[in-house]
Parts: sequence; structure tokens; C-alpha cells
Amino acid sequence: IDSKLPWVGTTIFTVMSKLAADCGAINLSQGFPDFQAEAALFDATLQAMSAGRNQYPPMAGVAELRTAIADKVAALYGADCDAEDEITVTAGATQAIFTAIAAFVRGGDEVIVFEPVYDSYVPAIETVGGKAVYAALRFPDYRPDWEQVRSLLSPRTRMIIINSPHNPTGSLFDADDLAALAELTRDTNIVLLADEVYEHIVFDGARHESVAAHPELAARSIVVSSFGKTYHITGWKIGYVLGPRELMREFRKVHQFNVFTVNTPCQLGIAEYMRDASRHLGLAAFYEGKRDFFRRQLGASRFELLPCRGTYFQLARYGAISDLPDQEFARWLTREVGVAVIPVSVFNHDGHDERVVRFCFAKQEATLAAAGERLRAI
Amino acid sequence: IDSKLPWVGTTIFTVMSKLAADCGAINLSQGFPDFQAEAALFDATLQAMSAGRNQYPPMAGVAELRTAIADKVAALYGADCDAEDEITVTAGATQAIFTAIAAFVRGGDEVIVFEPVYDSYVPAIETVGGKAVYAALRFPDYRPDWEQVRSLLSPRTRMIIINSPHNPTGSLFDADDLAALAELTRDTNIVLLADEVYEHIVFDGARHESVAAHPELAARSIVVSSFGKTYHITGWKIGYVLGPRELMREFRKVHQFNVFTVNTPCQLGIAEYMRDASRHLGLAAFYEGKRDFFRRQLGASRFELLPCRGTYFQLARYGAISDLPDQEFARWLTREVGVAVIPVSVFNHDGHDERVVRFCFAKQEATLAAAGERLRAI
Ligand SMILES: CSCCC(=O)C(=O)O
Ligand SMILES: CSCCC(=O)C(=O)O
Repeated sequence: IDSKLPWVGTTIFTVMSKLAADCGAINLSQGFPDFQAEAALFDATLQAMSAGRNQYPPMAGVAELRTAIADKVAALYGADCDAEDEITVTAGATQAIFTAIAAFVRGGDEVIVFEPVYDSYVPAIETVGGKAVYAALRFPDYRPDWEQVRSLLSPRTRMIIINSPHNPTGSLFDADDLAALAELTRDTNIVLLADEVYEHIVFDGARHESVAAHPELAARSIVVSSFGKTYHITGWKIGYVLGPRELMREFRKVHQFNVFTVNTPCQLGIAEYMRDASRHLGLAAFYEGKRDFFRRQLGASRFELLPCRGTYFQLARYGAISDLPDQEFARWLTREVGVAVIPVSVFNHDGHDERVVRFCFAKQEATLAAAGERLRAI
Repeated sequence: IDSKLPWVGTTIFTVMSKLAADCGAINLSQGFPDFQAEAALFDATLQAMSAGRNQYPPMAGVAELRTAIADKVAALYGADCDAEDEITVTAGATQAIFTAIAAFVRGGDEVIVFEPVYDSYVPAIETVGGKAVYAALRFPDYRPDWEQVRSLLSPRTRMIIINSPHNPTGSLFDADDLAALAELTRDTNIVLLADEVYEHIVFDGARHESVAAHPELAARSIVVSSFGKTYHITGWKIGYVLGPRELMREFRKVHQFNVFTVNTPCQLGIAEYMRDASRHLGLAAFYEGKRDFFRRQLGASRFELLPCRGTYFQLARYGAISDLPDQEFARWLTREVGVAVIPVSVFNHDGHDERVVRFCFAKQEATLAAAGERLRAI
């Protein structure tokens, strides 16, 4: 078979989770909680099933959930999103991102992404014949360089993809960054795709600067979020996008023929569950506790911890422990130490390697403590 | 905004279901049951949730479900599919089809489709820069013409999409058709995409000729099926694909970056539920009863019924009732008669109109009887 995408391998998350399972390692690689979601969510979902809500919902999502999302973004970001025309429920954030790219990027178009770059973006761009153009978030603070971004703009630039809180680095875009981005894209027809799936997970009193809260940017953006990250149900695969109606119309042209729509009873279960806002408002404190716990675990280790301003990921340098390239180090750590992690160089198109790995701390304290013990021993 | 897909509108299923709801019409347009699925399915799903199975499953689907699918296709089609490498669970059949197209079709490639053509295929092809080439299934029996197909082959032909049992026409591909297709594609590198979501719904003692049961074709095919159609849960959005490992590897390259994976607890619920094979084996008789009931309802009407060999759709000509084009007739029928249907011309790229509409008979007898009463009155 003559492959259309010969350079695309298996996602690192599948590779490392499988290696972790094969080795019986503690899995701090792929980002998902190892604790249970709340039973109220399951009950609300079962109730929808039992009430016969098992057939196709409207293409853009059930009204109950879109209204709940509109209420949330109004309360949090002062954004006035029309539930009918400016919100679409998606089969997870990954599908939202793929669909947005497929809806706007044509063969030969350029898309600016920031490296380290989440591993689905570039294959999605290339699947529709587009070309990724790389801006750097530079070690060790992973801040954007807007002059570099300016130099990468071209008449072919169709889209810029931003991600804050940033996976894998845990860095944030600040208000200044959004201002710079607005200035750069003013009077262009560049579409912004803002991946904000960790919107509720920001630390140390920082505020998540949502594109949805920035009217000028919001007018040319598709903003992506996820219920998986927020309600501890990564396996339910439900997320959503916000966007002005002209962009949403284009998004839905592809969405309707990609997945058409999303699991009805789970949408209804989430809609019911999210009526209680404390369920997302408490998330930052919850994960800040886990971050701090995990950092203390590694305090007495030979890992050098990088800043973590948001997300449930902690980066660490291991230069004092090993000279191995990060992909080999991650495999060694999984096999020999029994802790699986994600090597960060896989998110750099040139494989550029700062000897940094990513730990997921969305875990029970017992899990983090057990991992800490192993990691301090090396 | 400069649209990438200016010619793509809103899917007819959304348009007609919305019109039906707005008019309070009996909705025989979009294909979904109006009766309840079995509680055992909900219980099994809740059990998975309660057991904490709410995080990412493996990218290709939970092992339990892939094994159950392998067992089913072995029992029904004598096909020996490896659950690890030759089966992938998808977020519905639509996502399976979109992903297969995106994985194999490059800018400029040609894809042969049969008209009337299900409305997601061509927009999916065009989203990745491919070009649809149209073969005809001709009124009134909607049989393929393999000499025409041969004449449409070109060096750019990358894929042929077939659909049997066929939506919207209810026709079937017979063993002869698969033989002709095998002969036509022998020694080419054309990939077949076989949409078999109505595989269990064939009537009058006919057998569903699955591509999965045809080793030569199966070796170059992605075969798509759906749990929505089979277990009366169209809103759960879970389907699957079968394919040889070389093709499946390519499919998964896109799948992993499109949706990554599919709702964990619902996968587990279905896996548990499908252990009882009677749950799909009884489906043909169940829907044959509904077909016959609905045909009797229309027997004394002025609609002229076309043959229906499979699916849960019945075509009818309305030439004796009205001179309106079918799209206008469908709207009139919805608004004035209170029965929503799908106009078939929307599935023809040139709008070619035989004055035929599609009724969905996956409904309770009371629904079909009420519709029958209205339809006999005109
Ligand atoms: C889609 S699996 C990966 C989950 C995730 O977002 C991460 O680990 O970064
Ligand atoms: C994806 S909504 C349409 C359902 C369906 O397959 C049909 O009505 O033909």
C-alpha cells in the first residue's frame, strides 16, 4: 500500500500507555485521572437512556448542553455565545481540532503552530494537504516570541493554532500575548484555533486568558474545550467549540459529515451535571494541590522541575540522571524504574531535545507517592 | 469568510428533522427508531461507569468490544479478523467513512460513488481535495451497471465506495455484483470502502453479501458497520471498521488524530450486550414485519411503492399525487399532510429527480398507522 501519510506513526500516548501496561509501570504518561468521576454524572446519563433519549440529537448537540455551555462561558468570560449558532458539541477536543483544520485549511495553505506542539495538530493539517509552520516556545519558560511569529506570516497563512494552558509545557498565554496576537492578525483573514481544554486548571492565582473573553480575537476564532479534562471522564470523548456564526457555519459543514453528532445520553448527563458550577470552579485548587504534592515528591530527587502554571502536567529535566536522549530515557524509566512518562522532543518537528520529560499528576496521592519513591531512588 | 466548501449546505437529515419538529409532523425522514432500546444495554453501560471505566480506552477500541466484533464476523461471514490489528471502533459509521476517505484520498484523487449517494460521502471526498466520479444505480430497481463503472476507472481512481444494503434505495448488491467488482479492481491499488451499516436488515430470505465474506475483496477493503442501526441506539454514535492490517494501519493514522478513540463505558456496555447473538440475528424478521406493515398502510394510497430488499427505508413514487419536484413535495408533505420524508433527488449530484421520496419505517406500528392514515387521505 502506497501510504498517504508515510511519516505518521502511532501517537506517543498510545505507545507509552501500552509500554506502561506491558511493564506494569505506574503510568504518568498519557493524561488521564486514575480516580473516579462522580456518580451523579452516571445517574444523570442513565436517566437519559431510560427516558428513551438514545437517538440522534441535533447535529450541533442537544439544546440542554448547548445552553449550559452558553451559561458557563457567559459567567466565566463575559462572552455572549448564541447556543443555537455559535456552539457545537464535539466527540472530544481532538475531533474539534481536526474538524476545524479540515473546515478551513486547503491544500497548500500554511498553519502556524507553536512547538512543542500537541501531536494531533500537524498530522491533521497534513491530512488535508496543508503545511505546518513552526513557531517556538523556548525552553525553559516556553514563552511565545511574537516577532518570530510575525516573521512567519505569509499570504498563505490560513490559521494559527494556540494552546493555553499549554500541553505539554504547563505554560500560559498572558493578556499581553493575546494583545500581540490580535495586533498581528488584525485585518487579515487568518482563523485562530484556540485549544483551551485545560481552561479550568491554572495555578497560583493566575487567570485563564480565554480567547472567548477577548472580543476582537473571538470574532475570528474557534475555541475548543473538553468535558473529559474537567469532569474526570477523558474516556467519554465529549468536548465543544465556540465560534462566531460565520466560522461556525464552516465548522459544521465538516462536522456534520465527519461525526455528524455526539452521544445523546452522555450529552444529557453532562448537561444535568454541570448545572452545579462548583463542579468546575473547584478544579484549579484541586489540581494545584496535586501539583504541589507531586513537586514535593520530586524535591529530593535528581530531577530538575520546570515551572508549571497550568494543565495537569509537570515537566522535568533529567540531565543530572542520564545522558540518554529523552525518548530512550522515557523507555528506560518505564521499563527499569517503573514510571512511564512522555518524552517532550516528540513534540518538536526537528526532534530538538532538551532532555525534558512530562509527568501527568492527575493521579491519586498514593499513585504520586509511589511514583515519587521510585523516582527519588535513581 | 472565504469558504473552503461553498457548495456544502446543511445535511438533508437535519433540515427535514427540524422541519418535522417545527411543523409537529410525524417524522419518517431521518433514519432512527422511535422505540426504546433494551434496558440491559443501559445497565451494562452504567456498570462500566460505576466500575470506573471512564478514561481513555485504547485508541482502536476496548478489547472486550473488538473481541465481540471478531466473534460476530467469524460467525456470520466466516471472516477471520484479528481483534488487535484488523478492527477499529469508531464514533459512528459516518466518522468511519470520513476517516477512511481522509486516510486514503489525496488532493486530485478520484473516488467512484454510486448515485443516489449517501450525503456524507462526497463532501468528505471534497474536504480532502478529492474528486467524486458518479456511477448510476438506475430507477426503478437501482442496480449497478458494471460496464459503466469500468468506463469510469482511471489512473487517478483511488477508491470505490459501495453501500449495501443501500440507503436510500433499499437495493442490495448480490454475489454477482461482488464478483464483478473483484474482477474490475483486480491488480489495481484501488481501496474499497464498503458501507454495510444495514447488514442485519435484509428481507425475503435474501442474504447480506458482505465484503467481509469475500476474501479477495476483503483484502483491499475497509468495511463499515454501526451499532446504532442494529441495537436501536442511533444517538450513541458507535460503529466499527474491519480491514486488513496494511489498510487498517493507514486508517488508524487518521483515526487517532481525528477522534483518537470512542466513549469507553458505551463501548463496554455494547460489548456485554452483544454477547447474546439473538440481539442482532432477529433484526431482519423484526424489520420485515415493519416493512410489510407499512407497505400495507400505503397499499390503498396513491403512492407507488418501489421494491425494498433491505434497510429500514421504503421508496415511493408520488407522480399520481403531485407534479411538484421532490424537494418541494417533501416540504409540502411535511407541512400540509404532517408526514416528513426525504426527497431522493438530493442524493443525485445533478439533482436528477424521479419524483421519489424515502420513508423510514423504523417506527412503532402506531406511528406507521397514523402516518398511513394521513398518506391515504391525499
Ligand atoms: C488523546 S490521548 C492524550 C491525552 C492528552 O491529552 C495528553 O496526554 O497530553
Ligand atoms: C446521520 S443522520 C441520517 C441517518 C441516516 O442514515 C438516514 O436517515 O439515512
